[in-house]
Amino acid sequence: MAMKTLSAKNALALDKDLMSIGAFSIDQLMELAGLSVSQAVYRVHPPSRGRRVLVACGPGNNGGDGLVAARHLWHYGYKPTIYYPKQSKNELYQRLTTQLKNLNIPFTDDFPSALKQTDHIVDAIFGFSFKPPIRDPFPSVITLLEETSIPITSVDAPSSWDIEEGPPKEGPGAKFNPEVLVSLTAPKPLAKWFVGRHFLGGRFVSPDIAQKYELELPEYDGIDQIVEIGKDGQKL
Amino acid sequence: MAMKTLSAKNALALDKDLMSIGAFSIDQLMELAGLSVSQAVYRVHPPSRGRRVLVACGPGNNGGDGLVAARHLWHYGYKPTIYYPKQSKNELYQRLTTQLKNLNIPFTDDFPSALKQTDHIVDAIFGFSFKPPIRDPFPSVITLLEETSIPITSVDAPSSWDIEEGPPKEGPGAKFNPEVLVSLTAPKPLAKWFVGRHFLGGRFVSPDIAQKYELELPEYDGIDQIVEIGKDGQKL
Repeated sequence: MAMKTLSAKNALALDKDLMSIGAFSIDQLMELAGLSVSQAVYRVHPPSRGRRVLVACGPGNNGGDGLVAARHLWHYGYKPTIYYPKQSKNELYQRLTTQLKNLNIPFTDDFPSALKQTDHIVDAIFGFSFKPPIRDPFPSVITLLEETSIPITSVDAPSSWDIEEGPPKEGPGAKFNPEVLVSLTAPKPLAKWFVGRHFLGGRFVSPDIAQKYELELPEYDGIDQIVEIGKDGQKL
Repeated sequence: MAMKTLSAKNALALDKDLMSIGAFSIDQLMELAGLSVSQAVYRVHPPSRGRRVLVACGPGNNGGDGLVAARHLWHYGYKPTIYYPKQSKNELYQRLTTQLKNLNIPFTDDFPSALKQTDHIVDAIFGFSFKPPIRDPFPSVITLLEETSIPITSVDAPSSWDIEEGPPKEGPGAKFNPEVLVSLTAPKPLAKWFVGRHFLGGRFVSPDIAQKYELELPEYDGIDQIVEIGKDGQKL
């Protein structure tokens, strides 16, 4: 059975529905999305495997999910470092940034150096609203992510991948294969090209919204905010 | 060693600090507080012990924490029912209410009947800003909570208890002893009178704020949003 996926267009519409019909605030959704990501990192890379986590954040909502995940990771005992070169002036992102600075979590502009001093990477650069071309300074960052042997957890999409068509044919990202993908709300079509451990996060979708978008959501265990899924989209 | 507690006055000041210096929004804090409560309920009363949970919500922030907890409990597989007789017109509470209605979670005005059809109760009526007298319709609700044999999890305070002085000397609440208490951020002085399982929730306090209020926060395990503590305030 093929995995049910959510197109970029429908992912945007679903997000809007969550905030209108669903009555969620962006603060709530981002908190729960970032929490999901932090739980996936803990699952695949517990602190005993190395506490240093480099969180690469893009300018939009995907970056915001990364900022929230970094805060939870700090509380779990990790030592996050943040690479966030295009900081949004949006009030929410500024607050998420302050929350990290209050924990004395370092921010760096030097991605190549930070990459040499980490045990795990969270790729929160681009999400389902990504459209090429990749803007500076991210092409070189993507190339480094492609080349590194340090394990990477991508949030919603391996950054640089087309949401519908998967990895680019050439250029930065053409050979990018993160170890872990956390799909938020539902897998996007790019998941067909992904090989690695795949988690679904975002345990807040109502049955009505799931039905409207024809999602087939697997059951989560206990109080988990993530569930690991296979190539068919079913719970592993 | 005596438990370190946070006075009502300081609990209010700390909450204000979280939102000013801490840069948290009320949406974020309430989401994480409610999540803590839902995890405590899952710990003490897993779904196998009965899925019906009656969540009694007061008019303020404590009630909001209850509304968030109810949503998470639904996603864990519980069947919550909400008693929320004094619904706030505040936009946040209205959104939290809509989120529950979208899950087809029933609201009831008939507390005595609801009490006969539940396996567990969440008392989210009054929190650290409670001051007597107890206003209608809550005196009779507190009396029913006192008399029931169904286990109760109280959020931040057993409702009707004075934050500094514990249970009232007489009237509704004088004999109220919930089985479980979830203290948010830090235990309040009333915890000295509490006998039962005591959890701490609110894994978002920065070391700076903990130091300012001289909190002695125990370590949480793994990705838990709660930690069980003893009479000395230390992790059990």
